[in-house]
Amino acid sequence: MANALRQQAEAARAAGRKLASLSTGERVELLRAMGEALMREKDAILKANEADLRDAREAEARGEMSSALVARLVLDEKKLATLKDGIDAIAAQEEPLGKVLSELEMAEGMILRKETAPIGVILIIFESRPDAVPQIASLALRSGNGLLLKGGSEAARTVRAIVDVLKSAIEPKISGDLFALVETREEVRELLALDDVIDLVIPRGSNALVRSIMSSTRIPVLGHADGICHVYVDEEAELEKARAIVLDAKLDYPAACNAMETLLLHRSLVRDGRALTILDALKAANVRLYGGPNAVESLGLEPAADLHHEYGDLAATVEIVDSLDEAIDHIHRYGSAHTDAIITESKENAARFLRDVDSACVFHNASTRFADGYRFGLGAEVGISTSRIHARGPVGVEGLLTTRFKLEGSGDLVGSFSRGERSYTHKRLL
Amino acid sequence: MANALRQQAEAARAAGRKLASLSTGERVELLRAMGEALMREKDAILKANEADLRDAREAEARGEMSSALVARLVLDEKKLATLKDGIDAIAAQEEPLGKVLSELEMAEGMILRKETAPIGVILIIFESRPDAVPQIASLALRSGNGLLLKGGSEAARTVRAIVDVLKSAIEPKISGDLFALVETREEVRELLALDDVIDLVIPRGSNALVRSIMSSTRIPVLGHADGICHVYVDEEAELEKARAIVLDAKLDYPAACNAMETLLLHRSLVRDGRALTILDALKAANVRLYGGPNAVESLGLEPAADLHHEYGDLAATVEIVDSLDEAIDHIHRYGSAHTDAIITESKENAARFLRDVDSACVFHNASTRFADGYRFGLGAEVGISTSRIHARGPVGVEGLLTTRFKLEGSGDLVGSFSRGERSYTHKRLL
Repeated sequence: MANALRQQAEAARAAGRKLASLSTGERVELLRAMGEALMREKDAILKANEADLRDAREAEARGEMSSALVARLVLDEKKLATLKDGIDAIAAQEEPLGKVLSELEMAEGMILRKETAPIGVILIIFESRPDAVPQIASLALRSGNGLLLKGGSEAARTVRAIVDVLKSAIEPKISGDLFALVETREEVRELLALDDVIDLVIPRGSNALVRSIMSSTRIPVLGHADGICHVYVDEEAELEKARAIVLDAKLDYPAACNAMETLLLHRSLVRDGRALTILDALKAANVRLYGGPNAVESLGLEPAADLHHEYGDLAATVEIVDSLDEAIDHIHRYGSAHTDAIITESKENAARFLRDVDSACVFHNASTRFADGYRFGLGAEVGISTSRIHARGPVGVEGLLTTRFKLEGSGDLVGSFSRGERSYTHKRLL
Repeated sequence: MANALRQQAEAARAAGRKLASLSTGERVELLRAMGEALMREKDAILKANEADLRDAREAEARGEMSSALVARLVLDEKKLATLKDGIDAIAAQEEPLGKVLSELEMAEGMILRKETAPIGVILIIFESRPDAVPQIASLALRSGNGLLLKGGSEAARTVRAIVDVLKSAIEPKISGDLFALVETREEVRELLALDDVIDLVIPRGSNALVRSIMSSTRIPVLGHADGICHVYVDEEAELEKARAIVLDAKLDYPAACNAMETLLLHRSLVRDGRALTILDALKAANVRLYGGPNAVESLGLEPAADLHHEYGDLAATVEIVDSLDEAIDHIHRYGSAHTDAIITESKENAARFLRDVDSACVFHNASTRFADGYRFGLGAEVGISTSRIHARGPVGVEGLLTTRFKLEGSGDLVGSFSRGERSYTHKRLL
């Protein structure tokens, strides 16, 4: 089986190379064909989805599946139309490939360009939501990459139907091997060992999924293992602004990775009562509060079991700090370098926080919930990365790109330079 | 011991964060202090080097060390002065940190910037050459990173003396923990397991070293495992240009990763005798030639054992192809995606080769030996990467950088957007 999987990955790479050699217009045409095929073949897709849903509802009735999970499985004509619109939006974006990032005259008659290029073969693993398939497939196509896809088993029939439709939409022009469907966990396990033919793994789903993949492969993983986001309310914060941001950061979507998990309060807020206004508002919204050592002592909160903890729920850790430096130290020590915010009217403190907090996203007077590809204007989001390598924070299509150096010479030899007959000019043209 | 190593890595990260919070002027001052200290403390460094050399020469006499290795160990006052100049050149470079890569108005009153930032903690492993220490330490300092260094055991005393000098040069301003010396292989093995505190490994040395590190860590590795570079001489090549480039690519430094390992000849060159001119020139330079199947048949060469092979020596594989497409397929199949060149006077064929060959560096009418950080004008070279993630090809200081998103808001809530009270403008400012 490992051999068949390796062949699949190699076929996806070959198809990706062919795809990257097409013109922009041809790739755009393929994207439009994919969107149109989704609508034309909607009956087959919705029929497969009904079969998945029937099983899922039976599992729900037996108490083996949550209704939230069942709800995320549902596709209908309206959703398919939205997915087609999403593909068309990706088709309308600027060409991501072959963008010249720098240009240098190395020496007379030698021009070196650094250009964007596809990464190669990407393995994407996602849980139930079948809408992810057309989105990620169109991003991969736009960026010239081959794709191996593994969906959740609850959505198996829907995912297969969608992949079949997308394959036949591109096939007149390019091999359907560009998109390969992976159906079992065993296959995923074997694919994760193929670090010589797969270049990047993108898990989309729970932190548990991401963490388990990160710990079982040598292939680079684009994802976030933890989202322990802090909001620090500074001595010079405006109370109403702070209260509103803290509530938004915690309540807007508590299960999200960019939701606030820890609230840091400057001690002066405890002294003058502003802290209570904020804490009361959280309590009124049914948020359970757990204290760090100082908050336990000064506010009588129940102690938090661990200051490095992601609740993902209506709960938060609260701690009191004596200074901005202490807040920054706390974030470095207990955070996950995902997204952290300062609420303050002091420009100086804000500048220091934004300079010194070593996280993927650092915000001033804004909710941590803004850390998101769509909100950041990246178009479709590939994922959020807490890795410090390759791509960090919300990642758009550039997460699926690498670079190549192209040198245009005129018969140039290194020997001529080492013998001193010629010399480098290193003139920056772009 | 693992605990002590973890503390060392954490201390390097903390010192790196402090360093990144300094002003550009302060970091430049630290670099100048490092350069001056190298000259001021030259006696201590050269004395340590003499001790290493004495042992190395004894090992050489016993036949246990090559004279080339001994030669690479030697430091003298002139080399130290060159190293100081190198540090001063890095000090004079443009500030790499906090460079604004993009700027967006997300919505009214919300400005999002993507800026360059240090990666964190970098582990660098290099073989004998002690000159690598000041160079990599100054690159790390310039880019705000903490550094763990492991040198070759033959240079242990020299490396330790240099690291001590560099530590005390920065210590009035910043903790010497920024640079941590690792002295045993056992320690390296344990460090390679600390993927939560070390962000990047850079092995500088033989392919065997790089390959062994890549296969024993989850930490991303910046390096190249193989350098199987091709020169393809097209049907429309000019003979004299082709001959000169082929000779330069093979002979200039046969052990280098960017030296030619495989020569691909269009069949027309065999028919009209141009092939013989090139092959005779290689043979005259004592290059042993091994053939792929077609070359064995048409040119009577001894068969190559493996077409995917790096000789790193005065030897090369030769193969005959019937077309540009066949050349590209051969490169994809047997190459290592490092550096590949086409020699042709046809603009169309050159453009197709540069577009379709999926390698870190693709050259037209130039020797593969140009694939190098200095020649590419990157200033100091961190390494050459054949990874498709993070950095690819010759890598300068940008290989030691990541990015951060900084959002300046004015009390903004995600809820206001989802309730439709506000909307995103996504106006690109940079």
